Amino acid sequence: MRDAFHENLDRISDELVEMTTMVGQAIERATTALLDADLSVAESVIAADDDIDEVRRQVDDRCVDLLARQQPVATDLRMVVTAMHMASDIERMGDLARHVAKVARRRYPSGAVPDDVAEIISAMENVAKRLVAKTGAAIADKDVHAAIEIAKDDDEMDELHRTIFNTLLSGEWSHGTESAVNLTLISRYYERFGDHAVAVADRIVYLVTGSYGTVDEGLVTNA
Amino acid sequence: MRDAFHENLDRISDELVEMTTMVGQAIERATTALLDADLSVAESVIAADDDIDEVRRQVDDRCVDLLARQQPVATDLRMVVTAMHMASDIERMGDLARHVAKVARRRYPSGAVPDDVAEIISAMENVAKRLVAKTGAAIADKDVHAAIEIAKDDDEMDELHRTIFNTLLSGEWSHGTESAVNLTLISRYYERFGDHAVAVADRIVYLVTGSYGTVDEGLVTNA
Repeated sequence: MRDAFHENLDRISDELVEMTTMVGQAIERATTALLDADLSVAESVIAADDDIDEVRRQVDDRCVDLLARQQPVATDLRMVVTAMHMASDIERMGDLARHVAKVARRRYPSGAVPDDVAEIISAMENVAKRLVAKTGAAIADKDVHAAIEIAKDDDEMDELHRTIFNTLLSGEWSHGTESAVNLTLISRYYERFGDHAVAVADRIVYLVTGSYGTVDEGLVTNA
Repeated sequence: MRDAFHENLDRISDELVEMTTMVGQAIERATTALLDADLSVAESVIAADDDIDEVRRQVDDRCVDLLARQQPVATDLRMVVTAMHMASDIERMGDLARHVAKVARRRYPSGAVPDDVAEIISAMENVAKRLVAKTGAAIADKDVHAAIEIAKDDDEMDELHRTIFNTLLSGEWSHGTESAVNLTLISRYYERFGDHAVAVADRIVYLVTGSYGTVDEGLVTNA
């Protein structure tokens, strides 16, 4: 049987994985709300974000409690600190899914995404879901190789983000300014979603290897 | 004389305040780069962001070291954990200033902001500088009232952000899609800069009062 400290740490890890499942569902449903102009799905994503925030608070409280009661050092300490940072990033991924849902709600009953870019948004959703699934697996297994795959998947997200911007800036954008503004924000939300998955992956690399540095030295932001 | 723990904590606090000074300069210079289409200023903001990241790493390392060596509990523990969260938010404010500078660089030698919205961006810069100055003061003094003022200032930022969006969506936007896309991103960067100041303020409130909840229950994001 594991000692009390590691049992608690396992529980924190489980909660982080649960958070990744929640944000995976959130980004999937937000994309549905967006592409189908579905108001009730949008509302449910927005409401469900409170649950993600709540689990994050639980993780934070459990971590602080663990630090206070067990006073871990070395790797054990680093794992607790890392868990808090990861919780912050995953919670933020939930916020970004909520933002996507809010654009869908704001534009309802119109759609926020012109038909000719819907396919790219679908592709971004798929990458986002893959990222979040791998993030959950990487947390559960403290797997550096999975973490490195996350960076590669995020390169795909960045590429899709660039495709959206190239479409917007091609000089042939025919859907008007409001649509351009919404698409700029939406694309940025998916791209940031990916960045936070990479941030979690970086943390796992740090945890396992003990050295800073990012698994993706490439394009971190589009800006 | 203070004990070793509190001396270390003071040093961490000083570094956080130093970070706020650095991001204050960054957002000021980024705005100059943007409004004056000044490439060398843009480059210097982008390069200087590494220094902010470095101080953040120092804060993190110092916090982990303090947890390991002094094993604080209760309020002392909460202060160390809070410092790590604050460092994360302030570092992100630096990233956002860098993003603004990158838009300026990408658009050079053209300007990224049409003349008729330059005034609103200047106003956003002023709010940003005020926010960051108050954030530094609130950290230094653990001042809940200053933290509450930060939320009010951020309401001003949100209002300016809405003004930009209303301008973009008025149906009278005459500067083309590329300009709309850039302005959408720029406005979002300033707005997020303000959000992170509020997040730091929330942390100060939590530190002092021991209860969660945000100093600004209003518009957290425009999305």
